[in-house]
Amino acid sequence: MLILHDNIESGNAFKVRLLLSQLGLSFKTIQYDVTKGETRTAEYLKHINENGRIQVIEFEDGKCLAESNAIIYYFALDTDFFPSDKWQQAQVMKWLFFEQYSHEPCVAVAKYILTMLPKDTPRRSEIPNLHTKGYDALNIMEDRLKDHDFLVADKYTIADIALFAYTHKAEMGGFDLSCFPAIVNWIKHVENTDGFVTMYPDGWSRS
Amino acid sequence: MLILHDNIESGNAFKVRLLLSQLGLSFKTIQYDVTKGETRTAEYLKHINENGRIQVIEFEDGKCLAESNAIIYYFALDTDFFPSDKWQQAQVMKWLFFEQYSHEPCVAVAKYILTMLPKDTPRRSEIPNLHTKGYDALNIMEDRLKDHDFLVADKYTIADIALFAYTHKAEMGGFDLSCFPAIVNWIKHVENTDGFVTMYPDGWSRS
Repeated sequence: MLILHDNIESGNAFKVRLLLSQLGLSFKTIQYDVTKGETRTAEYLKHINENGRIQVIEFEDGKCLAESNAIIYYFALDTDFFPSDKWQQAQVMKWLFFEQYSHEPCVAVAKYILTMLPKDTPRRSEIPNLHTKGYDALNIMEDRLKDHDFLVADKYTIADIALFAYTHKAEMGGFDLSCFPAIVNWIKHVENTDGFVTMYPDGWSRS
Repeated sequence: MLILHDNIESGNAFKVRLLLSQLGLSFKTIQYDVTKGETRTAEYLKHINENGRIQVIEFEDGKCLAESNAIIYYFALDTDFFPSDKWQQAQVMKWLFFEQYSHEPCVAVAKYILTMLPKDTPRRSEIPNLHTKGYDALNIMEDRLKDHDFLVADKYTIADIALFAYTHKAEMGGFDLSCFPAIVNWIKHVENTDGFVTMYPDGWSRS
């Protein structure tokens, strides 16, 4: 069975959980606490990911694939979650790279600082800058979504999955989504797709 | 003719120049000075890239595609620069996302601070942290390249083009590549590929 090296708090890992669930693929998860360095052990670096990050998928034969967007790309190939048209494929890629370069490093990191680190962490000083850049990213999404149901070709693709992951939890990072009606509407669209699963399982609470 | 909205100092733009040249595709470039906000004008944001960044390719019909790695993906499809094997495609993607998330934000930004900003910029305080993270990224490349000629499947692909762009100029950002013999060797391999062009044209100098 597929194994997802996972962290329930990670939107990057959630992208993989969501897509695999929507594809009807069975997988088990192994949870890691990144704040305790569990993805930095010699064993993990050697066998799972030399980059010391989570969201790695391990196949039945032991092969591992890292980088959340590479994983969802791999599983989406030849399915409805990735367009067959080459131009549309390029648009999906544009959003995936936008997500990793301009969105995740702000929206996800703000959530991490505000929800995972101690309240007196000096990293709170990063928040204003993360908000400025994060709102820039959200504005770009809003601009696209104000007259489209989804990010590419008006169809639900891995571009939506990649951006949904941290956007729908952006308020945990102190972002106010009420200024983004198109994003709020798109979040509902994504939540209504077949086989949608939530990021945090029912009854889950942070220990 | 294709138009590349370009900046000669940008490794991201160089990825596109290198691939298009190696594919034998004709294109012209329009240069922008990002330090003067030339990619933040209302005109640019509206017609070229709402994200206000360079490395946008404009097609004959006026359509634009942003994000350097999405652009090289698009042009590499169905060519020798992108593998046909699905697992190898996923490996290429892994390196492209690694480049944008773990490599470029350190190796490229250090180059930018040390070569494009005034010598007394307060941003020089970021350099030690950028070097720590940048060396982590270079170590991961070294580990792969110590027994492989190229990053994926021992063939030259867009994974090499993406990582080559800023790696081969890492010393401009204060990185010492002499500790990375496999990377130094790989740089020579890339420079020997058919149709290779240099990042800075002959005779070019910073004004």
